Amino acid sequence: MTTSLGEIFLWELMGTAVLTLMGCGVVANNVLRKSGGHGGGYLMINFGWGFAVFAGASIAEPTGAHINPAVTLGLAVNGQTPWSQVPVYIIAQLIGGTVGAVLCWAAYKLQFDTHDDPGGTLGVFATAPTVRNTPWNLVTEAIGTFVLVAWIILSPGAEAGPDGVPTFGNAALGYAAVAFLVVGIGNSLGGPTGYAINPARDLGPRIAYALLPIHGKGSADWGYSWVPIAGPILGGVLAGALALALPVAG
Amino acid sequence: MTTSLGEIFLWELMGTAVLTLMGCGVVANNVLRKSGGHGGGYLMINFGWGFAVFAGASIAEPTGAHINPAVTLGLAVNGQTPWSQVPVYIIAQLIGGTVGAVLCWAAYKLQFDTHDDPGGTLGVFATAPTVRNTPWNLVTEAIGTFVLVAWIILSPGAEAGPDGVPTFGNAALGYAAVAFLVVGIGNSLGGPTGYAINPARDLGPRIAYALLPIHGKGSADWGYSWVPIAGPILGGVLAGALALALPVAG
Amino acid sequence: MTTSLGEIFLWELMGTAVLTLMGCGVVANNVLRKSGGHGGGYLMINFGWGFAVFAGASIAEPTGAHINPAVTLGLAVNGQTPWSQVPVYIIAQLIGGTVGAVLCWAAYKLQFDTHDDPGGTLGVFATAPTVRNTPWNLVTEAIGTFVLVAWIILSPGAEAGPDGVPTFGNAALGYAAVAFLVVGIGNSLGGPTGYAINPARDLGPRIAYALLPIHGKGSADWGYSWVPIAGPILGGVLAGALALALPVAG
Amino acid sequence: MTTSLGEIFLWELMGTAVLTLMGCGVVANNVLRKSGGHGGGYLMINFGWGFAVFAGASIAEPTGAHINPAVTLGLAVNGQTPWSQVPVYIIAQLIGGTVGAVLCWAAYKLQFDTHDDPGGTLGVFATAPTVRNTPWNLVTEAIGTFVLVAWIILSPGAEAGPDGVPTFGNAALGYAAVAFLVVGIGNSLGGPTGYAINPARDLGPRIAYALLPIHGKGSADWGYSWVPIAGPILGGVLAGALALALPVAG
Repeated sequence: MTTSLGEIFLWELMGTAVLTLMGCGVVANNVLRKSGGHGGGYLMINFGWGFAVFAGASIAEPTGAHINPAVTLGLAVNGQTPWSQVPVYIIAQLIGGTVGAVLCWAAYKLQFDTHDDPGGTLGVFATAPTVRNTPWNLVTEAIGTFVLVAWIILSPGAEAGPDGVPTFGNAALGYAAVAFLVVGIGNSLGGPTGYAINPARDLGPRIAYALLPIHGKGSADWGYSWVPIAGPILGGVLAGALALALPVAG
Repeated sequence: MTTSLGEIFLWELMGTAVLTLMGCGVVANNVLRKSGGHGGGYLMINFGWGFAVFAGASIAEPTGAHINPAVTLGLAVNGQTPWSQVPVYIIAQLIGGTVGAVLCWAAYKLQFDTHDDPGGTLGVFATAPTVRNTPWNLVTEAIGTFVLVAWIILSPGAEAGPDGVPTFGNAALGYAAVAFLVVGIGNSLGGPTGYAINPARDLGPRIAYALLPIHGKGSADWGYSWVPIAGPILGGVLAGALALALPVAG
Repeated sequence: MTTSLGEIFLWELMGTAVLTLMGCGVVANNVLRKSGGHGGGYLMINFGWGFAVFAGASIAEPTGAHINPAVTLGLAVNGQTPWSQVPVYIIAQLIGGTVGAVLCWAAYKLQFDTHDDPGGTLGVFATAPTVRNTPWNLVTEAIGTFVLVAWIILSPGAEAGPDGVPTFGNAALGYAAVAFLVVGIGNSLGGPTGYAINPARDLGPRIAYALLPIHGKGSADWGYSWVPIAGPILGGVLAGALALALPVAG
Repeated sequence: MTTSLGEIFLWELMGTAVLTLMGCGVVANNVLRKSGGHGGGYLMINFGWGFAVFAGASIAEPTGAHINPAVTLGLAVNGQTPWSQVPVYIIAQLIGGTVGAVLCWAAYKLQFDTHDDPGGTLGVFATAPTVRNTPWNLVTEAIGTFVLVAWIILSPGAEAGPDGVPTFGNAALGYAAVAFLVVGIGNSLGGPTGYAINPARDLGPRIAYALLPIHGKGSADWGYSWVPIAGPILGGVLAGALALALPVAG
């Protein structure tokens, strides 16, 4: 059986919403002063994003658990996702990324309202580089996403799924592998740019930040917003193209 | 074969007792000044609760490892647990939650006796919001529990169990998936209210706090106690209702 | 086929040696001032002991991965280990626990030699309570070990092994379940007494401390040494007796 | 079917490149002052290296996931890798280790350029002892590597692979077992020498450090560089020799 466009829309939207609800949530928990987890630390943020991917990916399993336009495009280049499905995947991921960020704001509404640096709340939603430099920021995002998508395509178990959809084992624990990889990318490659490695994870919440009535909010920094889109797409497409050239068992 | 009411009572009580013994224990270890783990940090608390769920759920496996009235009610709404069994599940979970908290107090008896802020020991047993506001506290608890119960119903492997009972793989490691999700919810959505996401985890230990001869104890804060009951139930029931409406393979 | 006494001696000695080499090692790494991991924190210590159990248990898999007299005795009470094998298990575990601690001392020789509080180095080898009180220290050790042994007997997968030996799955990852449980017990129940929960883990390294030429070492605190033996045995035997009384599928 | 020398070269180079990209990356993230993860802590470094092994090993799965000359030599001594393949494995690992470190430098280029102690950047690339003493530094590296290689040879699942190549399960999660072991070795045995436990992990990035135009860089400390080569080889070969002598099921 094949996956319908409606199923892609449904599961990718839900999976990406859970991803940004939990991912933005762990940053809110660390950053907002009236939150119980304030100052929990960088390792907690990385485990938070990793387990956010775990939750979102296992929910989006029926449609291959992309929840990331860079993954969708990398798999399309490698021939594992039909190009005709790509727009539906990406639109669903963007809507889901926005919806999850709105839910995160609702969960932390009281903490946003009592935060004493409300203009600095963009970091809960969108990434920013510690040193701003467009070419090198693109390089960092592309390297991180290349590792992610290359691993998804090349790792053992990736070709065992039904319907051409990569899968990571039958049990609920299967998606923990992706989670560990994302924790690893955050620990190892996340420092310079905050590791978007997923355009929907950055653009969706940035849109939510622009639209929501967040207490005393500042700029959404649209000038930087194309970097965490272009960098991850570049990395994902390179990984898909590399996989095409490699002698992987079909 | 079907699960008997006696088995439900036995395994859910034992599983929930292990849950609150270990869960309250990790807070005691962090909070009480004469404990070796004093000041261990928020990530340690979250891994503590996650592995408490791991231990309790794998012990309660014969009856579906609910150990949480919000899970039982969500699965009942979704048709996975018969309504006739629901009262037995919930009564066992409440008794277990209380018993586990009593054991936690016994394990940390010397630390409670030498704690220099004995009136602040309620946090070892029951949750409290950092900013008190009933509607938004309910929203936060409902969102966190919705993610938990929706994941349990929708995640891969959830429908493979015998006797209609969801299961998470045959090996001992299966329940690690639920543990990772709970660590994630704690990291990401636990800041505002301390993430009860389980009425038995909050009410059971709160009853234990009220009854036990804890050195210099303060109020059990009954005025807030209905929030970590109502919020999780709301989230769990919404997740069960959503799952009914989704095109999940039967 | 049955497991020979020689195999029990070999694998339990090796598994327990790896356990205390790595377990004492993580404490040395945190405590000794000239070590790279000095001040790494309590969560690192708990993950250290958990992954030490992971390594030791997966090496001792051919003989059921006891590496702990309290586990051996609990399984004997529950009828899963023949009483005739019990002495060989325990002797091998004690020798292994001592050998591992000697290797730990070799790995950290330069750090011991340059530590500026050499009399306080016993904590690398043996446990000590934060508040000394024999009955309650016994209670804490018994509760922690009860959780460990009850989980080993009752958790899913525990009865699938060949030759009556419990097993935790065929893959190398199987023993991660035990590791997560041990991390959880450390996080949650380790604060008051430093969680021996294993007589060989405490007595073996204490013997090593007494025998080794450690720079400026202090007392081996033999007065407390029977508590981390008696408490864990009590907890393990109670868990085995409880399991006998429970309606577990045979 | 047998593994060709070309496949060995390809996959071992790629796996080892991912290993040092992510492994050096987590140190960069902690050490460099303009990185978002600055001061993330020792546990984060250890999880970083562990998940770097996870990523690299699962990519190098087609050729047995050695990504470490000490593993290759230990398996050769134990008869699991043909001696004729050993040089190709090791050359690929060294090239990969260098390539990964170059990519790490690119990902953190802006952070290297703005670091205020540029002469102290060698620690991102190569290991160094906290107390310099050749014999004992060799002992520590040999013990850590012995645990790694002995575990790889002896752990359950290690003999199930096709073509004589050890494997760790079919699913993507299988290599998490190795990752947990490496996190454990880092936590427990990494303090004295920074746990190279892999000659390619140390020599490859050290060569990269010597060649790259790193801002204000200092000495590559070639005087110490043979220790993290000789120590791990000694430990790996001893583990292979021990395994030969043990009654392991063939």
